[in-house]
Amino acid sequence: MSASTDQPSPSLNQPLSGNAMPRFGGLATMMRLPAADSPAGLDAAFIGVPLDIGTSHRPGARFGPRQVRAESALLRPYNMATGAAPFDTLQVADLGDVPINTYSLGKSLDIITGYYRRVLESGCKPLTIGGDHTIALPILRAMAGRHGPVALVHVDAHADVNESMFGEPVAHGTPFRRAVEEGLLCGHKVWQIGLRGTGYAADDFDWPRAQGFNVVPAHEVWWRSLAPLMGAVRDSIGDHPVYLSFDIDGIDPAYAGGTGTPEIGGLTVPQALEIVRGLRGLNLVGADLVEVSPPYDPTGNTALLGANLLYEMLCVLPGVRRR
Amino acid sequence: MSASTDQPSPSLNQPLSGNAMPRFGGLATMMRLPAADSPAGLDAAFIGVPLDIGTSHRPGARFGPRQVRAESALLRPYNMATGAAPFDTLQVADLGDVPINTYSLGKSLDIITGYYRRVLESGCKPLTIGGDHTIALPILRAMAGRHGPVALVHVDAHADVNESMFGEPVAHGTPFRRAVEEGLLCGHKVWQIGLRGTGYAADDFDWPRAQGFNVVPAHEVWWRSLAPLMGAVRDSIGDHPVYLSFDIDGIDPAYAGGTGTPEIGGLTVPQALEIVRGLRGLNLVGADLVEVSPPYDPTGNTALLGANLLYEMLCVLPGVRRR
Amino acid sequence: MSASTDQPSPSLNQPLSGNAMPRFGGLATMMRLPAADSPAGLDAAFIGVPLDIGTSHRPGARFGPRQVRAESALLRPYNMATGAAPFDTLQVADLGDVPINTYSLGKSLDIITGYYRRVLESGCKPLTIGGDHTIALPILRAMAGRHGPVALVHVDAHADVNESMFGEPVAHGTPFRRAVEEGLLCGHKVWQIGLRGTGYAADDFDWPRAQGFNVVPAHEVWWRSLAPLMGAVRDSIGDHPVYLSFDIDGIDPAYAGGTGTPEIGGLTVPQALEIVRGLRGLNLVGADLVEVSPPYDPTGNTALLGANLLYEMLCVLPGVRRR
Amino acid sequence: MSASTDQPSPSLNQPLSGNAMPRFGGLATMMRLPAADSPAGLDAAFIGVPLDIGTSHRPGARFGPRQVRAESALLRPYNMATGAAPFDTLQVADLGDVPINTYSLGKSLDIITGYYRRVLESGCKPLTIGGDHTIALPILRAMAGRHGPVALVHVDAHADVNESMFGEPVAHGTPFRRAVEEGLLCGHKVWQIGLRGTGYAADDFDWPRAQGFNVVPAHEVWWRSLAPLMGAVRDSIGDHPVYLSFDIDGIDPAYAGGTGTPEIGGLTVPQALEIVRGLRGLNLVGADLVEVSPPYDPTGNTALLGANLLYEMLCVLPGVRRR
Amino acid sequence: MSASTDQPSPSLNQPLSGNAMPRFGGLATMMRLPAADSPAGLDAAFIGVPLDIGTSHRPGARFGPRQVRAESALLRPYNMATGAAPFDTLQVADLGDVPINTYSLGKSLDIITGYYRRVLESGCKPLTIGGDHTIALPILRAMAGRHGPVALVHVDAHADVNESMFGEPVAHGTPFRRAVEEGLLCGHKVWQIGLRGTGYAADDFDWPRAQGFNVVPAHEVWWRSLAPLMGAVRDSIGDHPVYLSFDIDGIDPAYAGGTGTPEIGGLTVPQALEIVRGLRGLNLVGADLVEVSPPYDPTGNTALLGANLLYEMLCVLPGVRRR
Amino acid sequence: MSASTDQPSPSLNQPLSGNAMPRFGGLATMMRLPAADSPAGLDAAFIGVPLDIGTSHRPGARFGPRQVRAESALLRPYNMATGAAPFDTLQVADLGDVPINTYSLGKSLDIITGYYRRVLESGCKPLTIGGDHTIALPILRAMAGRHGPVALVHVDAHADVNESMFGEPVAHGTPFRRAVEEGLLCGHKVWQIGLRGTGYAADDFDWPRAQGFNVVPAHEVWWRSLAPLMGAVRDSIGDHPVYLSFDIDGIDPAYAGGTGTPEIGGLTVPQALEIVRGLRGLNLVGADLVEVSPPYDPTGNTALLGANLLYEMLCVLPGVRRR
Repeated sequence: MSASTDQPSPSLNQPLSGNAMPRFGGLATMMRLPAADSPAGLDAAFIGVPLDIGTSHRPGARFGPRQVRAESALLRPYNMATGAAPFDTLQVADLGDVPINTYSLGKSLDIITGYYRRVLESGCKPLTIGGDHTIALPILRAMAGRHGPVALVHVDAHADVNESMFGEPVAHGTPFRRAVEEGLLCGHKVWQIGLRGTGYAADDFDWPRAQGFNVVPAHEVWWRSLAPLMGAVRDSIGDHPVYLSFDIDGIDPAYAGGTGTPEIGGLTVPQALEIVRGLRGLNLVGADLVEVSPPYDPTGNTALLGANLLYEMLCVLPGVRRR
Repeated sequence: MSASTDQPSPSLNQPLSGNAMPRFGGLATMMRLPAADSPAGLDAAFIGVPLDIGTSHRPGARFGPRQVRAESALLRPYNMATGAAPFDTLQVADLGDVPINTYSLGKSLDIITGYYRRVLESGCKPLTIGGDHTIALPILRAMAGRHGPVALVHVDAHADVNESMFGEPVAHGTPFRRAVEEGLLCGHKVWQIGLRGTGYAADDFDWPRAQGFNVVPAHEVWWRSLAPLMGAVRDSIGDHPVYLSFDIDGIDPAYAGGTGTPEIGGLTVPQALEIVRGLRGLNLVGADLVEVSPPYDPTGNTALLGANLLYEMLCVLPGVRRR
Repeated sequence: MSASTDQPSPSLNQPLSGNAMPRFGGLATMMRLPAADSPAGLDAAFIGVPLDIGTSHRPGARFGPRQVRAESALLRPYNMATGAAPFDTLQVADLGDVPINTYSLGKSLDIITGYYRRVLESGCKPLTIGGDHTIALPILRAMAGRHGPVALVHVDAHADVNESMFGEPVAHGTPFRRAVEEGLLCGHKVWQIGLRGTGYAADDFDWPRAQGFNVVPAHEVWWRSLAPLMGAVRDSIGDHPVYLSFDIDGIDPAYAGGTGTPEIGGLTVPQALEIVRGLRGLNLVGADLVEVSPPYDPTGNTALLGANLLYEMLCVLPGVRRR
Repeated sequence: MSASTDQPSPSLNQPLSGNAMPRFGGLATMMRLPAADSPAGLDAAFIGVPLDIGTSHRPGARFGPRQVRAESALLRPYNMATGAAPFDTLQVADLGDVPINTYSLGKSLDIITGYYRRVLESGCKPLTIGGDHTIALPILRAMAGRHGPVALVHVDAHADVNESMFGEPVAHGTPFRRAVEEGLLCGHKVWQIGLRGTGYAADDFDWPRAQGFNVVPAHEVWWRSLAPLMGAVRDSIGDHPVYLSFDIDGIDPAYAGGTGTPEIGGLTVPQALEIVRGLRGLNLVGADLVEVSPPYDPTGNTALLGANLLYEMLCVLPGVRRR
Repeated sequence: MSASTDQPSPSLNQPLSGNAMPRFGGLATMMRLPAADSPAGLDAAFIGVPLDIGTSHRPGARFGPRQVRAESALLRPYNMATGAAPFDTLQVADLGDVPINTYSLGKSLDIITGYYRRVLESGCKPLTIGGDHTIALPILRAMAGRHGPVALVHVDAHADVNESMFGEPVAHGTPFRRAVEEGLLCGHKVWQIGLRGTGYAADDFDWPRAQGFNVVPAHEVWWRSLAPLMGAVRDSIGDHPVYLSFDIDGIDPAYAGGTGTPEIGGLTVPQALEIVRGLRGLNLVGADLVEVSPPYDPTGNTALLGANLLYEMLCVLPGVRRR
Repeated sequence: MSASTDQPSPSLNQPLSGNAMPRFGGLATMMRLPAADSPAGLDAAFIGVPLDIGTSHRPGARFGPRQVRAESALLRPYNMATGAAPFDTLQVADLGDVPINTYSLGKSLDIITGYYRRVLESGCKPLTIGGDHTIALPILRAMAGRHGPVALVHVDAHADVNESMFGEPVAHGTPFRRAVEEGLLCGHKVWQIGLRGTGYAADDFDWPRAQGFNVVPAHEVWWRSLAPLMGAVRDSIGDHPVYLSFDIDGIDPAYAGGTGTPEIGGLTVPQALEIVRGLRGLNLVGADLVEVSPPYDPTGNTALLGANLLYEMLCVLPGVRRR
């Protein structure tokens, strides 16, 4: 945390105001924050990972970072609902995108892990704009390298714990199985929320449960506020380092149709907000928002939702003050 | 039912796995099931009826079968929420489309009735992909021909019991009035769920009630699970043969905007799933999903919803086993 | 009110029936009502105000009136949910659009105020199709000119009480601050419902509260029927003249994505209907529906929602009979 | 012709100026002309025929009249390229749409013929906005009823002389065969321009030639101005009454993609303009522009092209003066 | 060739007629031909290769085969412009898609080469629906394995002869450099037509010329028929086995906007048709049409163009008769 | 000009290579050039002017700069057709956007003129990304302030010399009339190319001719290369400072449909390229590309065309070397 006084440090980056440049103007950085070349001196940073070659169905998440940034122009700095004022105390910037190799999943994974190691080494908390969900694996490798096995809150329609896809160990449906095998997760502190849809067998949910995961299918929370659930999440995780991996398809396609593998019957946006806001007070060490696919988002509203969720993640980072 | 053992018969059709062919590849049959030329030997079949000349407003439902099939590529065989494993015990295929005459409603009706008579004679249960709602009438003629007057669960924004439209007795707003007049329905076992919108007169809902129909307007079930309602539905229908006719516009346009006559204030997808899943245990003799209009569905997500609902219908056919 | 008998006067305008002209045919007036050149003799009128140069982000609301009219073709005259039959007793027409000056906000405001003064002088209640929210200010000037300071029900994602935007006093984010300053509103009878999103400072909501406004943020009413709230609204307003200003972005983008400054986590359509229907019995002197932006509404469904809400507003005007 | 002086009669209708109402405002009549209820006193009228149930593939032309009108708002009264000033001498209005029966092709044909007979009886020349090409048959019936067999300039990708479609004699691929059989056309004065694409047999073009039609396939005029061709057309037709039937799919899909049965390798817009402008001096008794399908025209630019072509047709009506 | 008589063999597959099933109905095989599981007995086959992970910019070509098939429903069997009647003499079917591995370019290449070896061994000529242009390399490997180094007509905006992309030797911008290095091409019999756009250095076109390629940049053939060029192509190739690789981006984005790396200033569709039709008489051993990207093709018209070009390729295969 | 040696200075900015960052990644500056805060040291700069409140019909050009930049990611540094290598000798950057006041045309004009004065004072040549065509006026004010009255090549469908629009002197249809009145142009060295469409009177083209403008309507150059015309342009302008103002609607909507006031029958892209390339050798002091409207450009291809044209403008600036 950069500051603890009542007034934000004059040196802290602030989003470019709509009164200085119209929201439709200016370069499209995340939230209109300054672009930065290095994580040095940053408390948190938005980072794009434009990889979508791990996608099994509709592609397009490669344009997720660009479109989420463009739609984020509508965001203002203060959170009216929670009172969070992240730019009062944190130094935040947009670090741009990780230069993944779009022709090779394997090489891209190493590029991503290397990049995140450098970010984490500088003490900067990454807020990642995906990209498909494959990217959670190399990020978790870097996370565990710094923090040891982490707790995980995983919002998604899919468990993403396939043994393999088309025979391949790495794809957007396998990251959390690999993460378990590699010892990156603290199993009993893993929460999977929003799972649903069709699968291959009854035991698709058994494997995560066998790892100690807490599995919350979407249909079990229809009609309900998730505030109580998040109390249980916080209790189980305590002060353990926790990572949030948020696949936009955890949310119902009515709200988030611009994604690659939509599933009906999902979470509502109020539930999604309750999940993210419910992480306040935890030792959140990073977060991602993945699987926004702009070619399937003709209005840009799914990207806008993604941008808002990333902002809400920023608002629950340790050290954010509420006014 | 084709099988009653613990293991699915090796001869039962299975959807093509995403590990054998990417989901975006291969011919777009429903759920990537084998195509079949004949209902012989089938327990159930998906059938397209690409008719939309009964439509009063936005056309396009003629492309419904094609698009629902394309989006169904995302479906996997097992129902994670209910445990249903339909391909363990039923022989299912895609029978393709009924060759309707797109220049004549009258001739198309006869073509459809004839086609469904042959399907029913073979003991195959039809799961129909519309097409506009006009097609319910010729299907019900075939149904009543085989089963006598049937019970009906009718999900829709509109009662579809107009005396006529533009002076015509047959159109997508009249099938259930004709069905009553022709004695195809068991009136006290008819449930209409999701009705709403603007109409011509207060008695638009009176006529169905006068036939003994159970009318459940959408606004009476806002904020509620429909599980209790479905208990009442099951009680009233008992073991009578029941047909499900599901107009996608019964669901709110937020979820199902790609349709011809959308009405605001509709059912949610969780409610829709509760309705279909609530039919389990009944003697369901067939079902349809109508009024998906692809030109108004730029993301394909309405078609995907339709595909899911058809799958859920398959999952509640008699003889489906849960694991 | 034009009539009080049981039968509608034969001289009252009726929407063109779908049995006289298909809904996709005919000139696209609002609800297929007759166009009128003058408010004389009208109890209520639909009026378009195609202004969008007060917009801070996505433009396009200039096409709102045209598209809302086109989609309104699906509306029928009778309200199945409430029993309202507005055309039984009111003389209603479509007055067309106000000829705003699209190159000058200042001149447009005067044009609008002048136009509405003439409408109000004739005793006609205006139901306005926007256009961006800037237009509420010149309309309120005319309203206060006739009725004195009015009560206000304001549904919106944004309070629209900015001191200025880019240094300008008049824009779509400032109308209600100007209205307060000019004495157009009866502060303790102002209700702002649906507010949410990001802002500049914690006191963004304090200013309206300091004026006596009743502020109902969206997240405080997630999961709830607004029927009880509307009881409180009615109690507070009593028989004071009340104006309804409804920004479509008060509703969640899942339902109303075709708008210029969407905010996640908004009201549902059932809540929106409860709000409008909850105004029944009040002395409603006019209403508007603003910020539908057709370029961001590829299906037309946001415009259709807007058309329905305008119809519901008509249904709660004083003098409307329920059958 | 209404006037022969140098100054337009003050009583002649003029399109609403963009300086009186912004082009995006006002009711969307064709060219912003006054709407009229009757052809009495009109020299020419725009008439919509929103029929698309004769369509063999993509539907949507039912919305053609509405969308062509909306896009026509961009048109101004004077033709810069040709000098034509149609509103100087002709009384023109928008007569609205023919109330076709969207459930019956047969009944619709009779409705259309009856409507056009009344228009022609009043001495008004119809400029028709389709609708699919089926509508040419009932219009030609009325034309021949008044003028005897007419000459025809038919621009299209398809000859539309099928014996039948799906066994039906009337559909959008058959009107000109029926017209020949009914003696509505003067065969040697029929020109079909732009034909191309795939067919069923080599003799698809032989039948029209056997009737004396002049067939100009598109690929024979690639790379060329059609001005010379139009000289031959004028020579062959002389002062015989001639009708122009212009299917927008005669033009290449690059320019006119929003149509139901597009064919590659078509005419260019300059060629299309040369065709219409090349009719000047002929005894043009009516014209149509058909097959614009708005659901396949996301920008509206195909409808805009259609609106322009209809305006150019107006500009070559007898009696139009050039300045 | 399956037949040489005047009448098509009754055993030859024919596209399903629009008079047997509406064009919008039925399973979407290419040209509505029968699907086949094996190339045995086929003279030619349409094959989809839904690979797009070799794409450097916009993805989506993975859905190319599905969408090209869907739009091909509009095609009829006979070529009106050239008189070709391919189904009179050739046995043709749709073989479905190659099950590529969407997570690995390397593995996919081997899968494709193996698949095409089997097709070629059976004597079936492949007409390929891409997929991105990477697929040309594995197909050419199979081609050269059977025929030795082949002549090549390559229509494209890009030379696709990069040394590497992002350090990778295999991607959609490198296939023809690899093909040269592997000895798959007969350099002096290679024609690259339509090249244009921006590049990295002046020598981007020098390398192909150094291999003996004949390079025809697009801007050198603006304003011209390509019939003369095709004469030179035929002279240079003689009776050498020749492969056609047609990237839809060779054509201008006005006609073919639904593609991944569009370049302005391209070929027209008449030129494209001249190229394909100009191959008649050559020993064409196979052909592909690549880079249609459906997410960027909202009308489907680029896919329709692709379907037409594939049909024209079929029409110039050896053994096709003209009527 | 920054350099005259054979090798580009190592200090010259270069577009980020696709081998350093995938084209879909990275911040979306124009051509992936470095962003700059100041024109100091730059030979040329891309500048966005996101103003669209001068638009008379479809809005959206405010998003033009953002979308043109995003699509420019596909551009590479070298011009294959002309050999131009602009980054060998010029220092070029992206200066971002001018902070216009979107609520006031008048204030925006002053902001723009002030901004451009500062750019010109530093010796940097501006290449402007619009925004609507109103912006040409304030830019020309700055140009004439530095260079005196300038020659002008103006490509457009419209002459933009209206006396006023809706009574206002400043709007996107008036800039060149105001420029003449203010003495900013050298009338006999003004060329207007591509004019067409409908107008108000025959003398719409007379006024520009009376100022000595050279007017080239589009229909006079159909079917022709514009290379000869550009010879005449160069002869007439000689070494006078010349400005290029290019309205994308000068080009036909087939190529450039994503614009606010499209007109049929326009220039082709090859003609557009001939115009820009034909300016080589002139003393070009600045250029703009205006009226790209992203909401009407669902594929992004109009923005891509705009990006290419801006690149071609850069390629003909004085000092650019050809390799």
